[in-house]
Amino acid sequence: MTINIIVNGANGKMGKQAVAYLPTQTDLNLVATAGRNDNLTQLITQHQADIVVDLTTAEVAFSNATTIINAGARPVIGTSGFSDDEIKTLQQQCKQKKLGGIIAPNFSISAILMMQLAAKAAAYLPNVEIIEAHHNQKKDAPSGTAAKTATMINAAREAAQLAVPIDPTVVEQYPGCRGGDCHQVKIHSVRLPGFVATQEVIFGNTGETLSIRHNSINREAFMPGIALSCREVMKLDELVYGLESVL
Amino acid sequence: MTINIIVNGANGKMGKQAVAYLPTQTDLNLVATAGRNDNLTQLITQHQADIVVDLTTAEVAFSNATTIINAGARPVIGTSGFSDDEIKTLQQQCKQKKLGGIIAPNFSISAILMMQLAAKAAAYLPNVEIIEAHHNQKKDAPSGTAAKTATMINAAREAAQLAVPIDPTVVEQYPGCRGGDCHQVKIHSVRLPGFVATQEVIFGNTGETLSIRHNSINREAFMPGIALSCREVMKLDELVYGLESVL
Amino acid sequence: MTINIIVNGANGKMGKQAVAYLPTQTDLNLVATAGRNDNLTQLITQHQADIVVDLTTAEVAFSNATTIINAGARPVIGTSGFSDDEIKTLQQQCKQKKLGGIIAPNFSISAILMMQLAAKAAAYLPNVEIIEAHHNQKKDAPSGTAAKTATMINAAREAAQLAVPIDPTVVEQYPGCRGGDCHQVKIHSVRLPGFVATQEVIFGNTGETLSIRHNSINREAFMPGIALSCREVMKLDELVYGLESVL
Amino acid sequence: MTINIIVNGANGKMGKQAVAYLPTQTDLNLVATAGRNDNLTQLITQHQADIVVDLTTAEVAFSNATTIINAGARPVIGTSGFSDDEIKTLQQQCKQKKLGGIIAPNFSISAILMMQLAAKAAAYLPNVEIIEAHHNQKKDAPSGTAAKTATMINAAREAAQLAVPIDPTVVEQYPGCRGGDCHQVKIHSVRLPGFVATQEVIFGNTGETLSIRHNSINREAFMPGIALSCREVMKLDELVYGLESVL
Repeated sequence: MTINIIVNGANGKMGKQAVAYLPTQTDLNLVATAGRNDNLTQLITQHQADIVVDLTTAEVAFSNATTIINAGARPVIGTSGFSDDEIKTLQQQCKQKKLGGIIAPNFSISAILMMQLAAKAAAYLPNVEIIEAHHNQKKDAPSGTAAKTATMINAAREAAQLAVPIDPTVVEQYPGCRGGDCHQVKIHSVRLPGFVATQEVIFGNTGETLSIRHNSINREAFMPGIALSCREVMKLDELVYGLESVL
Repeated sequence: MTINIIVNGANGKMGKQAVAYLPTQTDLNLVATAGRNDNLTQLITQHQADIVVDLTTAEVAFSNATTIINAGARPVIGTSGFSDDEIKTLQQQCKQKKLGGIIAPNFSISAILMMQLAAKAAAYLPNVEIIEAHHNQKKDAPSGTAAKTATMINAAREAAQLAVPIDPTVVEQYPGCRGGDCHQVKIHSVRLPGFVATQEVIFGNTGETLSIRHNSINREAFMPGIALSCREVMKLDELVYGLESVL
Repeated sequence: MTINIIVNGANGKMGKQAVAYLPTQTDLNLVATAGRNDNLTQLITQHQADIVVDLTTAEVAFSNATTIINAGARPVIGTSGFSDDEIKTLQQQCKQKKLGGIIAPNFSISAILMMQLAAKAAAYLPNVEIIEAHHNQKKDAPSGTAAKTATMINAAREAAQLAVPIDPTVVEQYPGCRGGDCHQVKIHSVRLPGFVATQEVIFGNTGETLSIRHNSINREAFMPGIALSCREVMKLDELVYGLESVL
Repeated sequence: MTINIIVNGANGKMGKQAVAYLPTQTDLNLVATAGRNDNLTQLITQHQADIVVDLTTAEVAFSNATTIINAGARPVIGTSGFSDDEIKTLQQQCKQKKLGGIIAPNFSISAILMMQLAAKAAAYLPNVEIIEAHHNQKKDAPSGTAAKTATMINAAREAAQLAVPIDPTVVEQYPGCRGGDCHQVKIHSVRLPGFVATQEVIFGNTGETLSIRHNSINREAFMPGIALSCREVMKLDELVYGLESVL
């Protein structure tokens, strides 16, 4: 059995990657691609699409999702920026129609695993710092992934009733060298050409260290997560948020 | 409430470390140390020991364990080389007395977490290789930890019904450069001075990699796992095998 | 003063990158691009080109080089596969015309530095192994860079009269796990998706290790080396081989 | 020919290591050990010592050095904290007697190589950041080695007339996450148990990165540098400063 898929936003950077990648998966059947001027409802009906992978922009993603669900297809959406209300609305729509669906701001399987495994380790190893490296055109620091990881680590540490280690540094000769404090986890942000997106979570323990490192080099990194999501939403009868929901 | 602990084998390399480390933990009370010529039963009774941490050798560890259980203390044993029959016998003895206990061939929390996290990731990322590095006096390769990790990865991959990737190498110009095949996982063993024990499990995915790396620099690495085991066996009424049982 | 440059082979993968990159350098002036059907001599004269960056194929690169030199421009050539005789011939042609030029099979500055720095360290640290990782479509192992690095390391070690360390491994439980022996340096080749080309040279010493690691993620990695070569050949009156000649 | 060596400060942590290590080297002959109450001049004469390895403290090292030189032996001194005047005085004393000698605040060969190689690479790759990790009992940050490396990198970059890259970060959401600015090189200091002393210098270039990483796990790391210094001072007729002088 193959799954019929339409890629919406097929001319964008992510869309092009999806159009190239999905046909390499024998169980996934790319039946159509759609852009701004196409009638999505019509395409879904015409091609009996099971799923629409929506890789458009925040402005139109909510409206697209409603269209997809109304036409009886399952939404697989890679846009960040949905409000909590919008997510709830779409979840109700999916529930009514007993349709699976997923909204995931990050489709990288390895990035999500990195965060999950780091949270698991933090329940035993409270001493931890994060180093993330991105290209030198990134204007902000730290990365959203690093800040989210710090939140998850701190929550896991708290749930395990582990005390937060006290920073031993007394003298910081060059201000900032000890990193930024985010939810009681030190984050160090490197900005250099030659990186796309790298993050290492380092746990220190007496006599040993444990590191979990994720490195991505291009947008293809999101493709296996999109394919996995397509397979998983077929088994669901509700809309879930975050790739972690199907891992 | 503090836990009364006797360290047996207190003059060995591991024993000395335990004698130095355990008193740094406020909830653990080192009440006595024991060596070859001490009467262990008498010491347990005299000091009302809750636990005996046995860091002796394979030859005497089984006999020690029986002594410990008979005297009503909980065994925390760091010896490898027990037979399945011996483990079963000790488990029956503990069950009868409703005593907790643990036998762990590896007390490193980070090493055990590395294996567990690697098995979890292998359920989604079937492309994986292991690099382990040890000091150049180690005579065998690969390390037992690397072989065990490969077994766990392969089992997790199989349980997730993921196909084992086929090695693409057609020409291996220098025999061995592609590593050794252990349970369908390539292992690369580095032997150099300056390493104690390091292992990296690398998962490759389209456009990204995920690495889990453990590095240990001395025997102190086993101490937090021994302390954790002491806390956990107090809550048990049976003997478990492997530090993973209490993580 | 700016340098006038023509890119030949402008429609190839490398050519396209060069056409995009060179104009980002204020001192480099891309005056024309050339393909199979263009008259290179005419373009050089017409645009008063100082340099032709030739990113064509092994079949035509020698003939192109002669054309470039005869037209009075400096060749910057990124093709491997020249014979020693061909290189000598082109060097004589350049010498006669007092023209600078370069043939470099690898224009990555960091890759060349990695090899040079490794050779320097090998004069003090004879215990060394190489780990290289490439994508899993690479059919051969080890990489040419790894083999070349091993040769350079072994030569440096010999020049410093350091004894080659003896491999301590007695038992190799899974054949190949200790890597391939290339010029008395162990090479470990990892093949996984998510890597483009990575190499780490690890030196072990009593109580410490020194690692030199190169990671490239796309063809852009060759562009700064091409730009550097353009600047350097303007100062030369002969043709040199290898990017290392101008570092 | 073997070299006759006395270790002074033989009961200190470093001294003990040296007393254990030097006899493993076939060309080095440990003829005596000395402590606070020994007559160093007498020991040198009695044992015809070629070299005294002085591993005492800053308070007595200068006075010891004078004693060593006056007795006709070569000083190999591992103390930091000498003033410029003291160094000059000892250099004059050695020159007069045509004796080799060395004062090195850091005897780790790999650490010195890391700094030298980083300075070499900085002449081509101006985008660079430093990550250093030390145990969590270290009270200050960054490490002296990191600050020294930053100084050397900046000087090499300047000598090569390379522009210092501008930090692109516009928003630093958690203050300090972009690291500390030391001589226009960002330094990130990690403080975690399980590390002794680690430093990574990361150079970023278009499409690629080059990293040089040093990891030390115990005081033995200084022993090969002491042995190398013993061999090298035999060839000198002056006192040099820094292990880099003999590499």
